[in-house]
Amino acid sequence: MGELALIERVRHGWGGRSGRDVRLGIGDDCALLKLRPGQELAITTDLFLEGRHFRRDWHSAASAGHRALARGLSDLAGMGARPVAAFLSLALPADALSGRAGPRWVEEFFTGLRELGQRFGIGLAGGDTSESPGPFVIADVVLAGSVPAGRALRRSGGRPGDLLYVTGALGGSAAELQALQSGRGRSGRRSQGQPGTHPQLFPEPRVKVGLELVRRRLASTAIDLSDGLSTDLAHLCAESKTGAEIDAGAIPIHALAARASSDTSLTLALHGGEDYELLFAAPPAVRVPKQVGGVPITRIGRLTRTRIIQLLEDGKTTPLTAEGWQHLT
Amino acid sequence: MGELALIERVRHGWGGRSGRDVRLGIGDDCALLKLRPGQELAITTDLFLEGRHFRRDWHSAASAGHRALARGLSDLAGMGARPVAAFLSLALPADALSGRAGPRWVEEFFTGLRELGQRFGIGLAGGDTSESPGPFVIADVVLAGSVPAGRALRRSGGRPGDLLYVTGALGGSAAELQALQSGRGRSGRRSQGQPGTHPQLFPEPRVKVGLELVRRRLASTAIDLSDGLSTDLAHLCAESKTGAEIDAGAIPIHALAARASSDTSLTLALHGGEDYELLFAAPPAVRVPKQVGGVPITRIGRLTRTRIIQLLEDGKTTPLTAEGWQHLT
Repeated sequence: MGELALIERVRHGWGGRSGRDVRLGIGDDCALLKLRPGQELAITTDLFLEGRHFRRDWHSAASAGHRALARGLSDLAGMGARPVAAFLSLALPADALSGRAGPRWVEEFFTGLRELGQRFGIGLAGGDTSESPGPFVIADVVLAGSVPAGRALRRSGGRPGDLLYVTGALGGSAAELQALQSGRGRSGRRSQGQPGTHPQLFPEPRVKVGLELVRRRLASTAIDLSDGLSTDLAHLCAESKTGAEIDAGAIPIHALAARASSDTSLTLALHGGEDYELLFAAPPAVRVPKQVGGVPITRIGRLTRTRIIQLLEDGKTTPLTAEGWQHLT
Repeated sequence: MGELALIERVRHGWGGRSGRDVRLGIGDDCALLKLRPGQELAITTDLFLEGRHFRRDWHSAASAGHRALARGLSDLAGMGARPVAAFLSLALPADALSGRAGPRWVEEFFTGLRELGQRFGIGLAGGDTSESPGPFVIADVVLAGSVPAGRALRRSGGRPGDLLYVTGALGGSAAELQALQSGRGRSGRRSQGQPGTHPQLFPEPRVKVGLELVRRRLASTAIDLSDGLSTDLAHLCAESKTGAEIDAGAIPIHALAARASSDTSLTLALHGGEDYELLFAAPPAVRVPKQVGGVPITRIGRLTRTRIIQLLEDGKTTPLTAEGWQHLT
């Protein structure tokens, strides 16, 4: 399979199924998007590099494709944006362009990507391909989304006194990654199964929650939890010019992380990363439901005027340092 | 220099100088763009991989930065779109994140990128960074542009009988690359010098020409010449469902390519690639000026109903096969 054959496969495999905001997809110098009046365009780009963001011996090809797209979908969710189109730049090593296993890997990678994209109504509107200069798969995924003008959930929107919430449960992705590392995981699985049961292999971006937060004006600020709660909370606080207080006992722990000792469970939830849940804040006067878009919402703390981030645990307060996910290697 | 330091350098070095269509730049889950009413968004992504698209021993850091951005700007030019914002995903090898030479290379790479971007009124609105899994610099550049709705110059717009034109002169980039390969080039130069004099190191994307072609309704179709005239003409014909006839004697040869034998000159101009000129077509009734946006325009042939691409040379007609640029290695 050469580069042109790869482009044709992408184009005919998924390219045509783009949403109504995509005026022109794969096959020209540029793709063309036309948003409805009053909408802003949200754009995010995420590198997805073998050895840094995934490993072919830990993540199945379908998992890699799913995860490549999930990162950007989660960024859109963090802004409250509706997905419009995806763009994929993909450089494959020689062994994935030829031989027996290579084309199958590529095929399953695209299946993982396409299945997740279709669930959110988007197709590939463009991208680029090349042969990789090394033995690594190189990908960069761009997501475009739309959000009503002025209503995007910016990291800078938080105010002292706002209450902090997270969606779903934390630490599951890091716990599953540890299982894969120690050989206890199931890297070979090709499909997602029940959403939420494989938070590392098949994370579930909280797009619907983000849309609901915007539509119902429930949040003052939001960020997606890709690097770990401690690190992403620090990002949010830095942009909102606040501190925060987190109640350790309130943090929802994913079932896969809860199997560990309680210290390890909390560490996974605070610093594990790649959960792709949302962290958001709302003024105390806002009544935040217990579920949004079918996803449980848990209050875990509040933003503070003092610009330090603290963890309340067993009646004691300690500074919470950002020790988020440092990639795979 | 760690990854976070790199992000901060990018953000404060160039990120703030974005155009008025950029509502929110680097530092959130997504960037936000808001186009003026009646505009469509053009998006293009281009991989820029060390060993495939540039070599650190042939291209200076400033040249690499310039070329990384020029590819996407040229794609916008090929649609007739006005640049709005750039996004850079950059993965650096360990030797470029530490040591003495690394940070300087990164600094000069950004200088090349920024200088070209500023000439077209755009800044970096977002991106991603990582450590490279190999000893290679990995980049993916996304360009966003705006174009009046329905007016973009699509590859599919050509009709049999339309006359074919190119901007500037061809073959110069491949000729300069050959000089660099044989050690005769000046890979060490850090700045662009006079535009047009270094078509390989500092190509000049024809953004103004594209904008003028749209504004004055001069073209039925256009494509940027990144892969070589023979290959890009084949792309245009495939999408327009036409053939073409090219007059070899009419093709404008760049001064650097004209130094070679006449056979080699023509080969460089037909198949050399990376000239980043525009190829466009217009119905015979359209009076196409000799210059557009200050750039010479040359008529080189026409689109035909018969779906083959032919070269007229010395009174003989031969099929022109696509033998465009196959990357560096």
